[in-house]
Amino acid sequence: MEREGARRGFASDNQASAHPDALAAIAAANAGHAPAYGDDPWTAKAEAAFRSHFGTSARAFPVFNGTGANSTALVSLLRPWEAVVCSECAHIDTDECGAPEHFTGSKLLPVAAPDGRVTPAGVADRLRGIGVEHHSQPRALSLTEATEYGTVYGPARVRELADLAHEAGLFVHMDGARLANAAAALDLPMRALTTDAGVDVLSFGGTKNGLVMGEAVVFLSDRVSRAADAFKYARKNGGQLASKMRYVSAQLSALLDGDLWLRNARHANAMAARLEKGARGVPWVEIVAPVEANEIFARIPGRVVGDLQDAYPFYVWDERGRSLEDHTVVVRWVASWDTTEDDVDGLVAALADA
Amino acid sequence: MEREGARRGFASDNQASAHPDALAAIAAANAGHAPAYGDDPWTAKAEAAFRSHFGTSARAFPVFNGTGANSTALVSLLRPWEAVVCSECAHIDTDECGAPEHFTGSKLLPVAAPDGRVTPAGVADRLRGIGVEHHSQPRALSLTEATEYGTVYGPARVRELADLAHEAGLFVHMDGARLANAAAALDLPMRALTTDAGVDVLSFGGTKNGLVMGEAVVFLSDRVSRAADAFKYARKNGGQLASKMRYVSAQLSALLDGDLWLRNARHANAMAARLEKGARGVPWVEIVAPVEANEIFARIPGRVVGDLQDAYPFYVWDERGRSLEDHTVVVRWVASWDTTEDDVDGLVAALADA
Amino acid sequence: MEREGARRGFASDNQASAHPDALAAIAAANAGHAPAYGDDPWTAKAEAAFRSHFGTSARAFPVFNGTGANSTALVSLLRPWEAVVCSECAHIDTDECGAPEHFTGSKLLPVAAPDGRVTPAGVADRLRGIGVEHHSQPRALSLTEATEYGTVYGPARVRELADLAHEAGLFVHMDGARLANAAAALDLPMRALTTDAGVDVLSFGGTKNGLVMGEAVVFLSDRVSRAADAFKYARKNGGQLASKMRYVSAQLSALLDGDLWLRNARHANAMAARLEKGARGVPWVEIVAPVEANEIFARIPGRVVGDLQDAYPFYVWDERGRSLEDHTVVVRWVASWDTTEDDVDGLVAALADA
Amino acid sequence: MEREGARRGFASDNQASAHPDALAAIAAANAGHAPAYGDDPWTAKAEAAFRSHFGTSARAFPVFNGTGANSTALVSLLRPWEAVVCSECAHIDTDECGAPEHFTGSKLLPVAAPDGRVTPAGVADRLRGIGVEHHSQPRALSLTEATEYGTVYGPARVRELADLAHEAGLFVHMDGARLANAAAALDLPMRALTTDAGVDVLSFGGTKNGLVMGEAVVFLSDRVSRAADAFKYARKNGGQLASKMRYVSAQLSALLDGDLWLRNARHANAMAARLEKGARGVPWVEIVAPVEANEIFARIPGRVVGDLQDAYPFYVWDERGRSLEDHTVVVRWVASWDTTEDDVDGLVAALADA
Repeated sequence: MEREGARRGFASDNQASAHPDALAAIAAANAGHAPAYGDDPWTAKAEAAFRSHFGTSARAFPVFNGTGANSTALVSLLRPWEAVVCSECAHIDTDECGAPEHFTGSKLLPVAAPDGRVTPAGVADRLRGIGVEHHSQPRALSLTEATEYGTVYGPARVRELADLAHEAGLFVHMDGARLANAAAALDLPMRALTTDAGVDVLSFGGTKNGLVMGEAVVFLSDRVSRAADAFKYARKNGGQLASKMRYVSAQLSALLDGDLWLRNARHANAMAARLEKGARGVPWVEIVAPVEANEIFARIPGRVVGDLQDAYPFYVWDERGRSLEDHTVVVRWVASWDTTEDDVDGLVAALADA
Repeated sequence: MEREGARRGFASDNQASAHPDALAAIAAANAGHAPAYGDDPWTAKAEAAFRSHFGTSARAFPVFNGTGANSTALVSLLRPWEAVVCSECAHIDTDECGAPEHFTGSKLLPVAAPDGRVTPAGVADRLRGIGVEHHSQPRALSLTEATEYGTVYGPARVRELADLAHEAGLFVHMDGARLANAAAALDLPMRALTTDAGVDVLSFGGTKNGLVMGEAVVFLSDRVSRAADAFKYARKNGGQLASKMRYVSAQLSALLDGDLWLRNARHANAMAARLEKGARGVPWVEIVAPVEANEIFARIPGRVVGDLQDAYPFYVWDERGRSLEDHTVVVRWVASWDTTEDDVDGLVAALADA
Repeated sequence: MEREGARRGFASDNQASAHPDALAAIAAANAGHAPAYGDDPWTAKAEAAFRSHFGTSARAFPVFNGTGANSTALVSLLRPWEAVVCSECAHIDTDECGAPEHFTGSKLLPVAAPDGRVTPAGVADRLRGIGVEHHSQPRALSLTEATEYGTVYGPARVRELADLAHEAGLFVHMDGARLANAAAALDLPMRALTTDAGVDVLSFGGTKNGLVMGEAVVFLSDRVSRAADAFKYARKNGGQLASKMRYVSAQLSALLDGDLWLRNARHANAMAARLEKGARGVPWVEIVAPVEANEIFARIPGRVVGDLQDAYPFYVWDERGRSLEDHTVVVRWVASWDTTEDDVDGLVAALADA
Repeated sequence: MEREGARRGFASDNQASAHPDALAAIAAANAGHAPAYGDDPWTAKAEAAFRSHFGTSARAFPVFNGTGANSTALVSLLRPWEAVVCSECAHIDTDECGAPEHFTGSKLLPVAAPDGRVTPAGVADRLRGIGVEHHSQPRALSLTEATEYGTVYGPARVRELADLAHEAGLFVHMDGARLANAAAALDLPMRALTTDAGVDVLSFGGTKNGLVMGEAVVFLSDRVSRAADAFKYARKNGGQLASKMRYVSAQLSALLDGDLWLRNARHANAMAARLEKGARGVPWVEIVAPVEANEIFARIPGRVVGDLQDAYPFYVWDERGRSLEDHTVVVRWVASWDTTEDDVDGLVAALADA
């Protein structure tokens, strides 16, 4: 993670700006006094929006950020002697500085996921030692949708994994930081990938899809009704309860009341597809994972990385302190709701010229 | 805590709106792409603003909310076998749903504080069992400024407590959710109550003083330089690292670059003083704590509470499930940056008419 | 806690030796190989002994020590946003170096208990903020029997407190480090103070009643059946699972299969009664708490403490770094299963001569 | 883990009995009253024994069991945002039901270890993301000696790994549940594998080497002097402080004052060697890991497992719910201080007859 600045680029969708509608929503919510901590009309409206997307029994709790959403969701499901099965590249395992372990006291059990997706066989192999007190007891399966490698679980894959998990007594958590991108890619409503596919608890992501900030923990199934009942405490206890919640909730409504969530996600996906197409035309670029949402993983010569990053910030994904000169490296390019065709074409041109 | 709505009132300064400058700052920061997680120019500017207020060695870390600020600050100072000495009405002990214990695994040691302020004798009495392995070892003293009862520690009081704490090997943490109100009340720069008075770590509050949301953990002294070095990890590990941090940082700059922090706090304090004056003129109102910042605690007949709250939401402070009819109760009125003279005069009139 | 040596004395019943039967039980269990972790006949026998004392549905789990018993029992009952109501002198709050907070992440809510016993009114006053997310939710009431001040809750008191707790949705935990002393004092079976009085989970103490080491967590009621189901994991996860458990279990059987538990406790209580009687005959000794089990709390002149401790080790209970010369202090004398009449008479004589 | 009873066997060295000297030590320590919590002469003697083995600056703290030793040692070294690098088969990662995560709130970072030993390259590969706040910061390397696969790190391997760890700012922890077996196998003093090879903190194992129960956390280097200073609190806070510590300490002295530790370990190793030799003579047995201490891992036909276990309990190591009939499985045989030549020859004969 090196050499980045305030230039337009492909480092992450959280380097993108906020959509004007999100700012407008904040401004509109700035209407005098309102009850704190979510007992306000904007939060009620956001909760209704979540129900319209995820089913009438969905119970949504706005929180600040993705790590907070994941960690409070998991602590609501798990005891310290239980464990979360997740992919070896899951954000909760690799990019949250141990927050899930700190919040829960529990263990994560990573499963191989070459393209970002865990497989039923991989998950099943982790369901060992059930009932044996020496081993952390698997209690939740956490899936990321879209995955950290830009691939997407379709509804059938989610359902198969959810059934496997439920049969073994596990809850299914979904890290949906990019759920909108997955749904847009599949041209499905979000509930097809969540409520209808067996997901019990969702970390819904708004920040990467155009908000200033705003995520939500959404309880979807009866299996987690007790956790949902306790979640208001877990959220406060986890430092994720916004006092002026209306400003988070209003943004979530802006995203979900109409189709902003979909338009933003579709645009990001389309820009990623355009970039993939362009990059495939450059001989020294190898696309290394299926491009199914808004992220591209490509292998490029290390020696061209520096100049490219100067023009368009992005991350080298497999750096390990090695010199970039002598080998190829995998890089990640993320398209955002505000990525332009010019951005994409500029990067492709720079690639071709490198 | 009952009967509140979206009307203007005195329930809390976190029910107030956001100052237009905070919204303008968010809008101005919405300028294309920017590095995430604080590696952006808005955060650099906010850090500089904190240094200008709290001294050149101050190291500020924006976070989301007060509970998050306090809990991550404390976990950066404490091991599980150590303890925090605080007042019996400290927000960390009474209003954060156990977040400090959850984040730290540590114990809180409350000290009597009739008017919200702990005393040196009270603190000293808690410094027992030092060196004895059966007892949690006091390792931090946490002071709230202004206190939860609306009183203020002046610089001499803070210094005396800080000296006591330091001599016993404790760090001094300040919960400064309303630090601006305290500084405004005393007509002192904020550093007079913090850096210059021996405070080591500050939870700086912006949300209650006019922001949409935004707080910061600020390390002030050399005593906590190791904790400051580790704080970037503690913040992420605690779910308090904003990805699009620029939008938080820009608000903090809006507050601190000029005198918005002071104007907002002075106004809130002035409205509280006006309310105190008016309320003292009502025979059945007894002011029960010195009104030194923007909070008023008053004893009023229980039977008038309902109608008053219908007009102006506020909290009954000592409710314990008792009927309101037959006795007097202590209520809290909080003035905000956006409280108007009409609001105040309206409440006073309603009190007089009750 | 000062000036103690390997002399006979009254410092604590954990300074006493082990009963020969405990050593004989260890030797008898040393019979070749046996399954580890409790899957052995000695543990089965101990479990049966617990059922014979506490009812056929009692489920006992041997652990190492009292702090381990309390901490693992509590973590099996509580989530991090929940709280334990206990007396202000409860061992879990004052003498376990924060282990309960560390194991559970939860808060303790101490209640005044002048003679060691909490009252229904005191407990009820702590049951505030139920349903309000800002406050740790009371979820367990922990009673110590006999209390830390040597007093005893009779069955009616336990039942009244348990009913109060259950009505409010709390579990009842009992720290029974000296349960045998309480039962012996009241001439009641132990289940009269536990199972039959509404206690849900018991930390049963063996070490202070004559074992080398050995305690147990015992689940007594249907209310905690889920916690009981999970406890084997909580015990391992808490570092309290003995690999060669047979040596702990055999000691527990030695205590419980016959009446060793009762003989040891009766003897300790009788020695305490003898000491109380003797001490009351000394003019400068004031007994400050009812002597109902095996502990005596007395106020004596500070200047005699040193010489007395040289002869018979004991603790000054309210030392706070003050000089002993100029004032009286409260001291604690604990009688043990192996305290002799000579020990008692010697201390009384030394008191009289002081 | 199936079909075991109270028969002699090879399931684990914690199914072995206690050495008569351990019982004699307990009996000898049962001499009247003694200060609790380690302030007794037996503990002083044990501490001296540890210094004689591990160097004059070694600071030993007796604890109850291995999980307790490991978890309290690690919490004394780590903050919640830090991590422990260990082998993928490390007991702390696979067999402690998440106790290290629960005690520390930290993450474990497993490294491939085909024969139980991590390699410098494997460890170095885990030292990624240093200084990047999104990633748990590696802070300790934990080595098991002898390893969970019965192999041994010699002094040079330990030194190489320790140097690597120290250069990267990590502490070196050793899980020495079977350290005596490793030292005996190499014919080296224990300090050659610990203090002299760069280990900072040791979990010393006594239970598997003939004690009733007894382990110790031993701080060896100046690097961990602060952790050592705080360890008495960490031990109490972790529920690992024995009140009647003399009975643990006396056993540790019995092991360490003379050469009992060595005789027991040598015998167990010799029995394992005998078993290896015998098993290698059976055509359908494949030894799958170097037999360097007292454990043997062998691949045998699944269909013979049941009858063999009926005769001599042992564990199938790679069971995953598969039928034993159709494939071969890896089993573990552990020799103990009390394993006899008859035990070994009996198992070999049963293998040959299977």
